[in-house]
Amino acid sequence: MAISIAHLGPQGTYAELAALQYSTWLTHEFQQESRLCPCPSIAQTLRAVTQGQADLAVVPVENSIEGSVTTTLDTLWQLDMLQIQQALILPISHALLSQANAIELIKSVYSHPQALAQCQVWLETFLPTAQLIPTNSTTEALQHLEDDPTVAAISSQRAAQLYHLPVLDCPINDHPDNCTRFWIMGLQPSPGGSHTSLAFSVHDVPGALLKPLQVFADRGINMSRIESRPTKRSLGDYLFFIDLEADAREASIQAALAEIVDYTEVLKVFGSYSVLPTQSPPILEG
Amino acid sequence: MAISIAHLGPQGTYAELAALQYSTWLTHEFQQESRLCPCPSIAQTLRAVTQGQADLAVVPVENSIEGSVTTTLDTLWQLDMLQIQQALILPISHALLSQANAIELIKSVYSHPQALAQCQVWLETFLPTAQLIPTNSTTEALQHLEDDPTVAAISSQRAAQLYHLPVLDCPINDHPDNCTRFWIMGLQPSPGGSHTSLAFSVHDVPGALLKPLQVFADRGINMSRIESRPTKRSLGDYLFFIDLEADAREASIQAALAEIVDYTEVLKVFGSYSVLPTQSPPILEG
Repeated sequence: MAISIAHLGPQGTYAELAALQYSTWLTHEFQQESRLCPCPSIAQTLRAVTQGQADLAVVPVENSIEGSVTTTLDTLWQLDMLQIQQALILPISHALLSQANAIELIKSVYSHPQALAQCQVWLETFLPTAQLIPTNSTTEALQHLEDDPTVAAISSQRAAQLYHLPVLDCPINDHPDNCTRFWIMGLQPSPGGSHTSLAFSVHDVPGALLKPLQVFADRGINMSRIESRPTKRSLGDYLFFIDLEADAREASIQAALAEIVDYTEVLKVFGSYSVLPTQSPPILEG
Repeated sequence: MAISIAHLGPQGTYAELAALQYSTWLTHEFQQESRLCPCPSIAQTLRAVTQGQADLAVVPVENSIEGSVTTTLDTLWQLDMLQIQQALILPISHALLSQANAIELIKSVYSHPQALAQCQVWLETFLPTAQLIPTNSTTEALQHLEDDPTVAAISSQRAAQLYHLPVLDCPINDHPDNCTRFWIMGLQPSPGGSHTSLAFSVHDVPGALLKPLQVFADRGINMSRIESRPTKRSLGDYLFFIDLEADAREASIQAALAEIVDYTEVLKVFGSYSVLPTQSPPILEG
């Protein structure tokens, strides 16, 4: 039976591209069929799994230029039960889509704020007077193109193919090493792997954050990332999201996780997982 | 002579409200006159000071609900010379502005993505089918109101007064303790005070972050905040922004700052400063 994979839609978003890569991998590796379920927001993508409407959710965690995707972290903290099944790193290549014959004709550019930010220098160089207008997704930006040659959108090349839109320039992102890390979340127990992710809040005492970090350092466990998020209780009160280069099936990690319970207020372990090797973009059907 | 204070404009933004509070304080405390200079972006607000077009810049650093204002942190890392002169905490109270006679008539709501996110539960409860449309600032959202009674905007009550727009409901933010911390940046040397902020990148070795944190902990210096940002070089490579509850004029802090040079790649100290007591919103002229 085909498993269902929720992602931020509509068709043509980078989240869909990540979901397609994972789906291709499932077919090649396990002959497992899957179908994609586009959702209107990241929060609804994750809730689709906790509410039983989808088997898996593919969500962006962080981008190499713009940093954490805070909606993903905040929603994961609120929801229980979800475990990371796999990580996946997608190279991001932004294209300028427009009906214009020449770049000089463009007066306004629509895109998701993250995409506009990732092309900031390019936009300041080639379209210094264009109005930059934010949209809820890179695909939503395409709705504004219609037949107006003074309007452009920043989106993926896949979106250009899907919606038959001309590409004026690609890639236009300022940093060539632009990539986004995605997590594939599900209700199955953690599969194990080289990375472990967790989040915790701490008691409001001086040095509260250092204690849990020390527990990992004392055992030689490398922390590859720390991200703070507000608890939303009051200014200066934070949660911490941490990635470890370690597998929670190992005894030393289990001991560390047992020990930090004493130094944290609430602790959530999102499990251990491996990182899917980056593949070339899936071939477009049709 | 009046000093000039740059802030994200146009009139009616929360940044302008923070700049007004600071300006009022300067008058009361030092009989120092000032004038406000609205800028089109946070980056341009900060550059107005480094390029000599303004004396001070008032910029948002973090919100108690949505977290860090990443543009501010990323721009401060790029620019040299700027020192924090003062911190200021502004309570945030969002209002729903519309020409509609009743909330039921509203079909779309415009605002800055941070403001939309901060009113998410209210919007899901009272306007579950309304389209949420992002804008570059809360004030820009007001341009969409005109005489269309199916459109609403989320902005400040000051904006409602300034632009003579009806307030349908206020406050509509989901968390009552919603507030934003601002920094007042300038080229003068650090004035000293109870808080010190700095940022650093680390060498790519296991445990690289823990060493500098340990230096502060060993001296009993409390860290009130840690925020990571991508260096934009490659995924997994971070800068760290840290706030200390300490004054860099003290010998122990100076020793700690001298010591962490050995454990960091690039270190930038933004200086020591005090936090302005929260005041009631300034009275609106006219």
